[in-house]
This record gives sequence, C-alpha cells and structure tokens, in this order.
Amino acid sequence: MKDTHKHVKDSEVIKTEMVLPNDTNTLNNLMGGKLMHWMDVVAAISAQRHSNSIVVTASVDNISFKSPIALGNVVTLHAQVTRAFNTSMEVYIEVIAEDIPANRKYSSHKAFFTFVAVDCDGKPAKVPELIPLNEQEEELYKGALRRRQLRLILAKRMNPQDATELKSLFDLEGIGQKE
Amino acid sequence: MKDTHKHVKDSEVIKTEMVLPNDTNTLNNLMGGKLMHWMDVVAAISAQRHSNSIVVTASVDNISFKSPIALGNVVTLHAQVTRAFNTSMEVYIEVIAEDIPANRKYSSHKAFFTFVAVDCDGKPAKVPELIPLNEQEEELYKGALRRRQLRLILAKRMNPQDATELKSLFDLEGIGQKE
Amino acid sequence: MKDTHKHVKDSEVIKTEMVLPNDTNTLNNLMGGKLMHWMDVVAAISAQRHSNSIVVTASVDNISFKSPIALGNVVTLHAQVTRAFNTSMEVYIEVIAEDIPANRKYSSHKAFFTFVAVDCDGKPAKVPELIPLNEQEEELYKGALRRRQLRLILAKRMNPQDATELKSLFDLEGIGQKE
Amino acid sequence: MKDTHKHVKDSEVIKTEMVLPNDTNTLNNLMGGKLMHWMDVVAAISAQRHSNSIVVTASVDNISFKSPIALGNVVTLHAQVTRAFNTSMEVYIEVIAEDIPANRKYSSHKAFFTFVAVDCDGKPAKVPELIPLNEQEEELYKGALRRRQLRLILAKRMNPQDATELKSLFDLEGIGQKE
Amino acid sequence: MKDTHKHVKDSEVIKTEMVLPNDTNTLNNLMGGKLMHWMDVVAAISAQRHSNSIVVTASVDNISFKSPIALGNVVTLHAQVTRAFNTSMEVYIEVIAEDIPANRKYSSHKAFFTFVAVDCDGKPAKVPELIPLNEQEEELYKGALRRRQLRLILAKRMNPQDATELKSLFDLEGIGQKE
Amino acid sequence: MKDTHKHVKDSEVIKTEMVLPNDTNTLNNLMGGKLMHWMDVVAAISAQRHSNSIVVTASVDNISFKSPIALGNVVTLHAQVTRAFNTSMEVYIEVIAEDIPANRKYSSHKAFFTFVAVDCDGKPAKVPELIPLNEQEEELYKGALRRRQLRLILAKRMNPQDATELKSLFDLEGIGQKE
Repeated sequence: MKDTHKHVKDSEVIKTEMVLPNDTNTLNNLMGGKLMHWMDVVAAISAQRHSNSIVVTASVDNISFKSPIALGNVVTLHAQVTRAFNTSMEVYIEVIAEDIPANRKYSSHKAFFTFVAVDCDGKPAKVPELIPLNEQEEELYKGALRRRQLRLILAKRMNPQDATELKSLFDLEGIGQKE
Repeated sequence: MKDTHKHVKDSEVIKTEMVLPNDTNTLNNLMGGKLMHWMDVVAAISAQRHSNSIVVTASVDNISFKSPIALGNVVTLHAQVTRAFNTSMEVYIEVIAEDIPANRKYSSHKAFFTFVAVDCDGKPAKVPELIPLNEQEEELYKGALRRRQLRLILAKRMNPQDATELKSLFDLEGIGQKE
Repeated sequence: MKDTHKHVKDSEVIKTEMVLPNDTNTLNNLMGGKLMHWMDVVAAISAQRHSNSIVVTASVDNISFKSPIALGNVVTLHAQVTRAFNTSMEVYIEVIAEDIPANRKYSSHKAFFTFVAVDCDGKPAKVPELIPLNEQEEELYKGALRRRQLRLILAKRMNPQDATELKSLFDLEGIGQKE
Repeated sequence: MKDTHKHVKDSEVIKTEMVLPNDTNTLNNLMGGKLMHWMDVVAAISAQRHSNSIVVTASVDNISFKSPIALGNVVTLHAQVTRAFNTSMEVYIEVIAEDIPANRKYSSHKAFFTFVAVDCDGKPAKVPELIPLNEQEEELYKGALRRRQLRLILAKRMNPQDATELKSLFDLEGIGQKE
Repeated sequence: MKDTHKHVKDSEVIKTEMVLPNDTNTLNNLMGGKLMHWMDVVAAISAQRHSNSIVVTASVDNISFKSPIALGNVVTLHAQVTRAFNTSMEVYIEVIAEDIPANRKYSSHKAFFTFVAVDCDGKPAKVPELIPLNEQEEELYKGALRRRQLRLILAKRMNPQDATELKSLFDLEGIGQKE
Repeated sequence: MKDTHKHVKDSEVIKTEMVLPNDTNTLNNLMGGKLMHWMDVVAAISAQRHSNSIVVTASVDNISFKSPIALGNVVTLHAQVTRAFNTSMEVYIEVIAEDIPANRKYSSHKAFFTFVAVDCDGKPAKVPELIPLNEQEEELYKGALRRRQLRLILAKRMNPQDATELKSLFDLEGIGQKE
C-alpha cells in the first residue's frame, strides 16, 4: 500500500557530475541545455521517490543562468519535493559548482520543475501529500501554491482574477526564485 | 564590420532529430530534459546567427510539456530571434513532433530562451537591432519587452512598479506562451 | 490511404548541428564518419517523409570530403528525395559548414543515399512516385536513373551492356556529384 | 626516420563492437550511419599505422548495405591499407556481423575509404609505399588504381579519356566491390 | 595554503544515476563496465575533495558483481576517502540500486579505488592526512593498510614477508570487502 | 548442439579504440573508468564466444593503472578465455596504448574478469571446458585456479584453509598480474 503522506527528506536526491568537453561551448563553459538535462534527471528521481511512481516532466519555471561553470569543474545538484498537488509535485533543485583544486564553490542555480505521477498506461496517478516539518520546508511549501498559480496563468489555464494566493504580480514574495 | 540591424529570417534555424532509446523514460517517451537540451542548442545557433558572436544562455522562460513524444518519432525545432536588447537576444523556439509512418503531427511545444553575446574573453558584446517586418514578427517583438520585464521581476532585478509595459499580471496578453 | 505520388518539398528536411569535441580528430576537425552518421539520419527522415514508412539505408554513393570543418562551427544538412523506384528512394544531401562569428560559409559536401521502405516485418513496401516540378528537380530526377545504374553495376547486380541510360562512363553527365 | 615502404600487415586493425540500443533504428537494426562511423574510425587507425601521421578522410567509395545487423549482435571490422599514392592511402574494410549465442556469422559488408596523411599544420605529407606480398594483396593493390580513377572521374577531377587503367566501365573487374 | 589533515565527511560524494538503455546488456541489466565507470567518476571527485588536487586512478581492488541492476532503476553511489598515504588515497564506494516504483532497494556493491594526487605537470603531490573520527571510520582506516599491502603484493611491488599488517592471507579480517 | 570443449583461439577478441576528448580527465589522459568499461565489453564478447551464451560480469580482479594514456592515442584491447569453471569463465585482457604518429607503443595494462553464462531467463548455464594447447595457455589455465581461490576468499565465500592451490599468500606465483 502506498503512503498517504511523506516528508521532504523522503525525496532528497543528490547528483554529482564532472563537466566534460562535450558538455561545454566554445568558451569551455557548461552549456545551459546540458545543465537543464541534469536538473530534469535529478528532479525526476526526486519526484519518483515521493510518489513511488513513474513520473513525467510537466513544466519548468523560469531559470536564469548566472556565472558560467568551467570545463573540468564539479557540479552538485540537490533535489527535493516542495509540495504535492493531487497527481503532480513541485521539485526544487539547487545547483552548486566547484573548482575543487582551487577550493572554490563559485556558482549557484535554483530551479523549480513540476512532475506528474503516472501509472503504467501513462494515466495520472494520485501521489502522497507532502507534510513540511520545519520553517524552510514550510516556506517552500507555501511558495509552491503561488508559483503554481503563476504557472497556470502563464499556460493560460487559470484566470488571473482567480489567483487568490498570487494576489498580484506586484506582491512578489515567493514567486521569484528563492533566496 | 558587423551589421547594425538584422531581420528575423537572418536567424532562422531548423534542427530535426529522431528520438532514440537513450532519450526516453520508462514509458518510452522523450525526457523533458533532453528536449530542453535540443532547444538550447538550436536557440544558441539562432542567437549566433543574429549576433555573429559566441553566445551564452542567460535564461529560459517557463515551459510546459503537454503531450508526450514517443520513441522513434521525429522532432523538428524551429528557432528565431524575436528581439535584441543591447547585448542580449530573446529567441523563440517552436517544436513539432511527428509520427511520420502514421502521417501524424501530434505535439507542439513553445519556449523563449534569452542569450547574451560575448567576445573571446567572455565579456558582453553589443548585438545588431532586430527590425520586425510583418505582423507576426511585430507581435513577438512587442511581447518580448513584456516577457523581459517578467523575467527581471522573477529574478528580483526589477521593481514591479517599474514594469510599465507589463502593467499588471492581470493584463496577460503577451506574457503567456504565444498561441 | 497512402499517396500515389509526392513532390520534392514533401520530403525536405533540415538538420543543424554544432561540432562538439567528441566529433573531432586530433586536428580539431569534424571526423568524416561523424558527418556520414548525420547524413544518414537526415536522409532517413527525408525518405520517411516521402514514403510514410520505416526506411533502411540501402546504399551510399561515393562521397569526397573537401575542406575540413572546424570544432565549434555549425553544420547544416538539407535532404530531399530526388526519385522513387518502386520500393526504394534516392535522397540528395547538401551540407553547409559555417563559422558564424566570422560570418563565413566555407564548405559544402554533397551526397546521394538510397533507402528502401519496409513494413513492420522488414519486408520492402511500395512508395509513392516522385513528380519533379521544376528544372532543378527534373535534373536530379533524371540523374537518379544514371546513378542507379552505376550503383547496380558497382554492386555487380547489373550487366554494363544493359545500362542504357548510363551509356558509357565516358559520357559522364549526371553520374558525378551534382555541380 | 620514417619508413620508405611498408607491408599490408603493418596496417591491419581489428575493431569489435556490440550493437547497443542507441545504434539501432525502429526495427532494432544497426543504422547505416553508425556502421559508417565505425568504418571511418577503424580505417583512420589503419591509415595512421601505415603513415605514422595524422590522417583525414578524403573519400568513401560506394557502399551497399545488404542484410540488416540486429541489436545485441557483435560486429567485427577489419581494416588494411591496399595501396599508397604519394600522400594518400586506400583502406579496405571488411565487416562481419555475428549472433554469437546462435553461433551464426550472418552478414558481411565491404568498403573502400581513402585518407590523406597530414602534418601538424594540416598540410599533406608523403607516406611510405605499400609493397604487396601475396596474390590477394596484389589483387587489392592493382584494383586500387582502377578504383582511384573512378573516384577522380566521379569527382570530376579526371577526364575519362585519361583513365587508362579503368579502360571502360564495361570492363568491370576491380572497380566493383571485391568478391 | 593546503590543509594538513582532513576528515571523512570532507570527501563524501553522492552520485545518483538512472539506468538508460545504452547502459544495459541483452538481458536489460546494467553492464558491469558502466557501473565501474560511474564508480571511477564518483571516487575521483571524492579524492579531489580530500586533496584539492587533480587526481588519477592508480588501482581498483577486486570487485564482485552480485544481483543484476535493471533498466530504468536508480543507482546511488556514495564515495569517501578512507585513508591517505603520502601522495595517494584509498576511496571506498558503496552502491545501492533501487526499483523506486516498487519501493525496493535490492542490490549493494562495494569497491575500493586508489588515486594519486598530481600537480599540473602530472607529478605526484602530497595530500593531507585523513583523521578518522568514529569507530566505523577507524575500521576502514585500519583496513586500508592491509588492503594496500595486498595491492602491492599483487602488483609484485612488495615482498610478502614485509607485509607485517597483512600477516597472512589466513587472517583475513579487513582485506575482503567490508561487511 | 553446443561444444563440449573449446580452445583459447575460439574466444580471442580484439577491440581498437581512439581516445576521444570525453574519455579524458583534466590532464588529457584516458580516465580509468572508461578503460575498465572497454575492458568489460571486449571481455564479455570473448566470454560469449567461448560459451555461445549471453554472459554477465561476475567479478573483476585487482587492476593497477601504470603510465597514463593520452588524448588522440590508440588503445588496443586483446581478450581471451583462460579457463572455464562449470558455468563461469575467466577472461584475460591485455591493453596496449600507442602514439602512432610517434611510432611508440608505450603502455600496457593487464586484467582478469570473470563472467557467468546465463540462459534467456538469466539462470546460469553450463559452458564448454577450455583445453589449453601450448605452454603460455597452460600457464594462464593453471593460474586461473589460484586466482579463483583468492577471489572466493576475498568475497568471503571460501575458507582460506581450503585454498589448497593458493597455498599461502606468501607463495605468490600466479595470483599477481601475469608478467
């Protein structure tokens, strides 16, 4: 029997990668597309851990790429589910880049991916609730609702007037990338 | 000497891919991360074509994944620059999936990526202006400013009160994915 | 129901690739084998488009590799069916290499691949006729018969005396690579 | 100091590969493009062995693909230089496919690739002569001249009237694939 | 300035991978060679973390592969340095396989890799000492000396009579794989 | 019907690879993990050849990596079965690295892998005996028993007192890597 609820720690996944030549552009920096590929894999495993189901990527929130990540450096991706919504889950991914010989952690990216749990026929399947246990988990949990409303509005699947949690774009706490 | 302005057709790029086993998940459907990787490559080439520079991915707007794309099917990605902003460019990507033996085009994804042109030292470099030539190009051009303001707000680099073009989230023309 | 005939534009496919480190030899130039791999993929999709069938590579005509293509440059492959022969199709592939930051299109390769359409059991399947619509398509269409006779002779499946279209090797119009 | 001549056995190279899922098409058979990629790698190593130089692919002769090669099967590629021409070498490649659990060798492909030896600046470099030592090597050696003339004619770099060795297409010994 | 000593937690690395089609054999199970490749990457990053140097693989101890790991399942690799020896480090790797939809952790592999720290010219470089902090770390630390003596004997670089810590093969505590 | 015995030459396999950028570490040398991956593939094909069965990797003996192998160099792997044990086979792999333009063979690695033959359900299947035919094959054949006892002891599946062939670690002929 499947669980009725789970905690954040149940879905924590860590993936460490070394930046190889084929992952880089002409400047010898990691290509954005390769980083998103890794984010998708680590987030999918996290959503699998929460749901004990096969999962499919439903959406990716706005990601901004800051400092470049160099060839030969090490990238660590942490993923965890922030909140479950009936058959979907929001996953938060944090990326750290390191130049280990130089003893320098020099870059950090953040992203939110959404996954839907599916059964063997590809039909959406119910997932356990996520119960936040501390303040940080609570904050990500609350923000998930606002981010979901923005996602639905951007996909034109929700009328802005109904986005009660989002209120207005001018009250931005929680829809931007987490500090 | 570099051009002072360019047109949309100067940056059009088409990339056709066949979905291979390693690109798919347990349900034999294309993984979202792989699709984003292809989007990044085709969009980067488009931004190169506009700027005649090396380019780096600066951001990706919200993408939602609708119908799954099956193993063995063909994916066609079209990219074009919609607007240039000093050293950055917005690229619009349209994705069509086809089951060719079944004569069925069955899926379409849309995405907006932003790239920065850089010189050999990785410093931002000025890019030509983009001049839209017809109504459809004009519409994408205008929407680019609103999408840019949303991007800056989400990245907490713009105060919502200053987003004059965006006006309010409740006036949504142009910030959602293009119909 | 399958079409009884198709036009060249029905099978046009474009594939754009960036030359990555693993695609290159010790001189940082694209390896011939990798270029042939890309040619085969784009040509197979073109033959699929013409036949709405699964297709298998039947033969590759003589290819000569001229100027080398450098790491980080962009390769654009265009494929189109030139003529159909009962269950097989000849596909013409044109390859352009570009150093986009230098604004230079500097290399072009041409190749002819032949594919056989097959059903789910791998048995050859009838394909639509190709009807050429302009002079350039007509020229490729006519040349296809001569190239086919050379192919059959080289595979020792045709007696040279029966190669009425080929006439003699000494009348070479159309068997060499298209200008 | 480089050798002034070499023998066929000096350039023999064997490469054994297992057909993996990503190498196959929808029918679970090895794609022609992947096989050509492997042929190019094994032939390039053979040409390196003959010339003790970096080499680049100059041309590929007509290849016809006969029986399909199945997923999980083993492919063995043998390459050897057949003849040297100042700065270029012709390499003969023989491919055997095996279903080892079924104890069946079931497919064979043959191909001729031509390579040019280059120095560190990419300029053509002189290569040792090849001295054939037995009848089979002698036959490949002689055929190499005829195949070369056909190649030059097809590339429109030789006038058919000057192809004294090729004589006419109607005397086909040696220009088709070796029995 | 480099550290003179470090603790086990400084070199802990986790790498999570999903088993994809190209990683598997004909029975759809992960190939041993691919698992060793992942082990080498995660262990190299761990040794980098301990030494803040570039590292090269020096040796791999006997690994035995028990239960097979299936396509689509998730593999988690944990690596940590167990002991440092002047310029080399022993790394302990633990591998867990999971069928997440079935909620089953079903396989575990253990391995010991040795790495040498090198400077930019590839010359061996001194590494910090490792100070074990608890009983489990102490046990791995002590065993490292015995495993090292066995390694040196197997490489014929130590005379068995000098293997004072190893005593005899008949006193096997610590040279086999850790329980 | 399957053979009741086979000879060493029946299982000889050669695999030649060129070291590509993605196979190398920050010093542009082949990564140990990639070399082990190639060893596993060539050894698995060798074990398939001996058993005419699907095979799975059972264990890998201690491997020590000596001189580094550089980017662009050529690696030749030779594999052959040394002895069969009911359902398992020991495979001996020899690796030669060459800088062909420099006419230098400069590195050699040796390894022993063990494979189990399995039927379609993954159950162990009986394999033919191996009959050694000359002194060198005889030596590898005899050593295989001692290496097997060491393997079983290291896996804690044999009591050292029962390792009659191994005698003691202090009589090392045959358990170290072959000279």
